[in-house]
Amino acid sequence: MAYMLYYWDGIPGRGEFVRLALEYAEAEYVDVARESGGTERLMAMLKGEHAVMVPFAPPFLKDGDVLVSHVANILLYLGDRLELAPADDAGRFHANGLQLTITDIVAEVHDCHHPIGTSLYYEEQKDEAKRRSENFLIDRLPKFLGYFEKVLAHNAQSGTFAVGSRLTYVDLSLFHLVDGLRYAFPQAMEGDHARYQRLLALHDHIRELPAIASYLASERRLDFNQSGIFRHYPELDALNGP
Amino acid sequence: MAYMLYYWDGIPGRGEFVRLALEYAEAEYVDVARESGGTERLMAMLKGEHAVMVPFAPPFLKDGDVLVSHVANILLYLGDRLELAPADDAGRFHANGLQLTITDIVAEVHDCHHPIGTSLYYEEQKDEAKRRSENFLIDRLPKFLGYFEKVLAHNAQSGTFAVGSRLTYVDLSLFHLVDGLRYAFPQAMEGDHARYQRLLALHDHIRELPAIASYLASERRLDFNQSGIFRHYPELDALNGP
Repeated sequence: MAYMLYYWDGIPGRGEFVRLALEYAEAEYVDVARESGGTERLMAMLKGEHAVMVPFAPPFLKDGDVLVSHVANILLYLGDRLELAPADDAGRFHANGLQLTITDIVAEVHDCHHPIGTSLYYEEQKDEAKRRSENFLIDRLPKFLGYFEKVLAHNAQSGTFAVGSRLTYVDLSLFHLVDGLRYAFPQAMEGDHARYQRLLALHDHIRELPAIASYLASERRLDFNQSGIFRHYPELDALNGP
Repeated sequence: MAYMLYYWDGIPGRGEFVRLALEYAEAEYVDVARESGGTERLMAMLKGEHAVMVPFAPPFLKDGDVLVSHVANILLYLGDRLELAPADDAGRFHANGLQLTITDIVAEVHDCHHPIGTSLYYEEQKDEAKRRSENFLIDRLPKFLGYFEKVLAHNAQSGTFAVGSRLTYVDLSLFHLVDGLRYAFPQAMEGDHARYQRLLALHDHIRELPAIASYLASERRLDFNQSGIFRHYPELDALNGP
């Protein structure tokens, strides 16, 4: 039976971390909201249509009777089933911890353009967004990327991947994180090749994998835009800009 | 062997969600940073002392050779071992999804007093904090608490708990969430008894459980203060205040 992925249509957003895992594993799945009538079906689930579980927000994944919400939780669930996670407990919890650190930086990237509230437009919080983004680029981005670089260096089992000896969903998410950061903050991300060598090498490695390359070239892959998590506002990318 | 909990000394903070699970289960554990020399041992772990895993930030839990980071991940790990989670897969992933929603509101509560950056003092971001808190109290708090109320109502297996028929770590975390919100936003939380009846009844139920009541009366329980996640700044609690 196909996995049913529920996520907002029109943006890569948080759903993209799940899509990449499904695509890499060549799993059968339906991107529900992109089908005809799909957004209505997504909304019905949010209103409590499922007998057991009401999700707080997309993305969530339905696999038969099981409903799993939140990116890291979905990837934990898929990790075992699609062989995208270490088989041992220590490795599985290690991978989940790394994924939750990715969750944290993704939330901070979102708050760069929405530091006051998601219910307000960007235009209503531009001054605060500029201040928050400056703090993010100076203080938080190097901390997170430096951390992931250290994680890759610390993994004695692989010269390429984050956990254990094989590719896991964490590596696919790191690929998307780098991709999104380069879209949102091209200036700030420029020239960091020496500093984040392993992380950028991982990004390049993932991009060339046949299943990923084919997905990226397909219509299933949505472009970054000004409605998702990763948005490009030049005024937020410039540390000493206007 | 005792669980080793690594979390900053002096604040309940995110570590408190883990402490409540350990205390309720009457598990043997060491709150490392509160021992003599403990903060140095915590810092050594953050610097990469553990052979396999470098945590990004506290809290993290060491159980023999296994190191688990992030609150929701630690609770997932302990849930199975301390019988604080449903035994079936659907229930386990359901519980983890709810815990991740708690993670999200906790991050938003933190950002009420630090909307621009954690590296800045509250005093450096007071104006933005006021604006963000207003948005949080009007828009986000009712959304989150209304959601948890709906989750409790939706659970056909129990009239009290969030998932399945028995108490899980999610219920203990909801207890602490309500506790923290009442400390941080006493005015905003007042008078919501009718609206969040099930959630507040769960809070009262947990508080009276013998293991929890005894923990709350002990020196192991730290008071909320102005350095943690839940902070009380009267100016952030008042919707139309000065």
